[in-house]
Amino acid sequence: MLKNCWENVRKTVPLIHNITNYVTVNDVANAILACGGSPIMSDEPDDVTEITALCGGLNINIGTLHKSSIEAMMLAGKRANGLGHPILLDPVGAGASTLRTQTALNLMKTLHLTAIRGNISEIKTLALGSGTTKGVDADVADQVTMGTLAESVDFVKKFAWESRAIVAVTGAIDLASDGTDCYVIQNGRPEMGKITGTGCQLSGIMTAFLTANPDNRLEAAAAALCMMGLAGEIAWGLMQKGDGNATYRNRIIDALYTMDGETLEKGANYEIR
Amino acid sequence: MLKNCWENVRKTVPLIHNITNYVTVNDVANAILACGGSPIMSDEPDDVTEITALCGGLNINIGTLHKSSIEAMMLAGKRANGLGHPILLDPVGAGASTLRTQTALNLMKTLHLTAIRGNISEIKTLALGSGTTKGVDADVADQVTMGTLAESVDFVKKFAWESRAIVAVTGAIDLASDGTDCYVIQNGRPEMGKITGTGCQLSGIMTAFLTANPDNRLEAAAAALCMMGLAGEIAWGLMQKGDGNATYRNRIIDALYTMDGETLEKGANYEIR
Amino acid sequence: MLKNCWENVRKTVPLIHNITNYVTVNDVANAILACGGSPIMSDEPDDVTEITALCGGLNINIGTLHKSSIEAMMLAGKRANGLGHPILLDPVGAGASTLRTQTALNLMKTLHLTAIRGNISEIKTLALGSGTTKGVDADVADQVTMGTLAESVDFVKKFAWESRAIVAVTGAIDLASDGTDCYVIQNGRPEMGKITGTGCQLSGIMTAFLTANPDNRLEAAAAALCMMGLAGEIAWGLMQKGDGNATYRNRIIDALYTMDGETLEKGANYEIR
Repeated sequence: MLKNCWENVRKTVPLIHNITNYVTVNDVANAILACGGSPIMSDEPDDVTEITALCGGLNINIGTLHKSSIEAMMLAGKRANGLGHPILLDPVGAGASTLRTQTALNLMKTLHLTAIRGNISEIKTLALGSGTTKGVDADVADQVTMGTLAESVDFVKKFAWESRAIVAVTGAIDLASDGTDCYVIQNGRPEMGKITGTGCQLSGIMTAFLTANPDNRLEAAAAALCMMGLAGEIAWGLMQKGDGNATYRNRIIDALYTMDGETLEKGANYEIR
Repeated sequence: MLKNCWENVRKTVPLIHNITNYVTVNDVANAILACGGSPIMSDEPDDVTEITALCGGLNINIGTLHKSSIEAMMLAGKRANGLGHPILLDPVGAGASTLRTQTALNLMKTLHLTAIRGNISEIKTLALGSGTTKGVDADVADQVTMGTLAESVDFVKKFAWESRAIVAVTGAIDLASDGTDCYVIQNGRPEMGKITGTGCQLSGIMTAFLTANPDNRLEAAAAALCMMGLAGEIAWGLMQKGDGNATYRNRIIDALYTMDGETLEKGANYEIR
Repeated sequence: MLKNCWENVRKTVPLIHNITNYVTVNDVANAILACGGSPIMSDEPDDVTEITALCGGLNINIGTLHKSSIEAMMLAGKRANGLGHPILLDPVGAGASTLRTQTALNLMKTLHLTAIRGNISEIKTLALGSGTTKGVDADVADQVTMGTLAESVDFVKKFAWESRAIVAVTGAIDLASDGTDCYVIQNGRPEMGKITGTGCQLSGIMTAFLTANPDNRLEAAAAALCMMGLAGEIAWGLMQKGDGNATYRNRIIDALYTMDGETLEKGANYEIR
């Protein structure tokens, strides 16, 4: 059950090493804390291997790459692999620039990734070497809809199988597959796209869920997806006249913080294909 | 009309490349989203030319310079110029250190800037090679008041003419000139100075307005100034007992998000000299 | 009296140079503004000596170290020492990695520090070359409790005496000593640990208090500790159903902003040993 995955986060308080962008880093830290994990950030090559060794999981996000942070990602990733820690890759903007695409592909090639989470354009870029990423948002032409669901599920399953990682594609419909099963999740609100960093927060949370549930990682990834989407729904229900995307941002993190297992279990809207 | 400038942002959803400081970057992203634009951040020299080519406009903010981000500003700026994209420079702290002053002056010399937005001390530093910037805030001795308005308008017009850029000076009274006309704007609240980054947010928004209104850039800059000031007024009106600068920060971004064209048109308080 | 220390911050508006981590930097800036100080951030070696010379105090936080920011810390620190400015060191994660521990120890050796503020594991690492820092949080085994209070007070006094700095250890019970006296402070809420950066904010505020009270620094440090803890208590009292750590974060900064001297004086819960 999804709620067990989440209770494992609260019980074990996984320490998550984040090498992430400076745009949304504060929200990532607060979202991980809201879920019951504990975040630490470090992206200096001389610091990361010891920090990652202290932690239980590693979240790599390429949203604002620097030469030194790329080196740090590789070093931390190899160490995390050596220790058997789960690694999640968030390929922010893959397809938007050569550096982003190549860095994400190199990380996939060099490291054994536990999960890859991105929008459909980013994931297509990694899978097919193509895709039309428009900045950091998915291109409309790529989006997963009810009309394209069957082929999208097939695509995600195939890419998960080939990459030997859980692949999570987020959008109006979220998909998560380990190559065999595919969760099709319909939680969340379109207004979440008007806040910077809900995807980054999700990647941080998902890393905590993967770390706390070593024997049940696909369900853990699905639980994180449902939890973030549901937080977006709950937060939206609390919006008052005059509230906008800044208040919505805070209320989503608040909803992660205040959620209980029953709410997650009842609110999660998914099927497995 | 100002509201048309803003509707053009909502309609065209300009993608804005920001090379900005890490202090206020999250608020800049959310403010651009609140207005209807789409932000992307990148400051790695190897990444910026492709990213800026994807975008419609470039926002350069020198609030926390690094050697590599200075290189990135130059590379991105030259590419943006080659593509005819508008570039805004926010010379945060020019006058406070040699590196900041020289970087701002080099950017002015090397690039064709569409707009320069700063406080009066920063702008005087660029115009006159002097000014008394106290950290990142304007010096009291420099401030634009009703008593010094005529000479301030002349100064801003002259500097805009010479620099071939729209010059926007913000403070208790905001001025924006293209060298011929000068908007004199009295929106905003003094308490906005107790929040870090309202100036940075304004620069992000203004870049989106300039990008969405290529044929009407002075009015677009004025619309951004009125919108930010008016958001500060609306947000202040919603403050409750116990609220302080953190809540005010959120409410200002919320007010940008919820504003409609009529509110902007009616609330904008300006004259053209 | 504590409130005098704080009134001196409001009256003198100390300009504080922060070389700090990119995770919590925005909250540090807003917290300093909330207390009546003025923050500026700069961590580029070519920029920091001029910036620190403009300021009244220097806040060094090692939460996300980079090679260049370490160099900047040394350069700024030496300049601040030359000018007689107070310097506070926040050794985030000392004990968690060699780079963090060595950097903190080098800063202690090279600079004359006015104050060192950290959790008990970080401070033990600096004092004893040991301690069991678990990421950026204190280890349970190290925590200051009523049962270990007498020996903790002795430890903090001894380390303050040896290091010739005010040492402030924060946790459920806060301690601050100059080597002779030790404030034992019981303000704050455990839920503050579920927000990233309350410690970083406190270090920023404390630097402003130290700067505004050159003749009374131990009391100034204690005033900052009481003020932050009390803000956490006041903010907690305002929490509504559905609020979580994101709203709590905002309300704490709001409580700093709206606090008056009487509230601080009456709410401060401390004794001197």
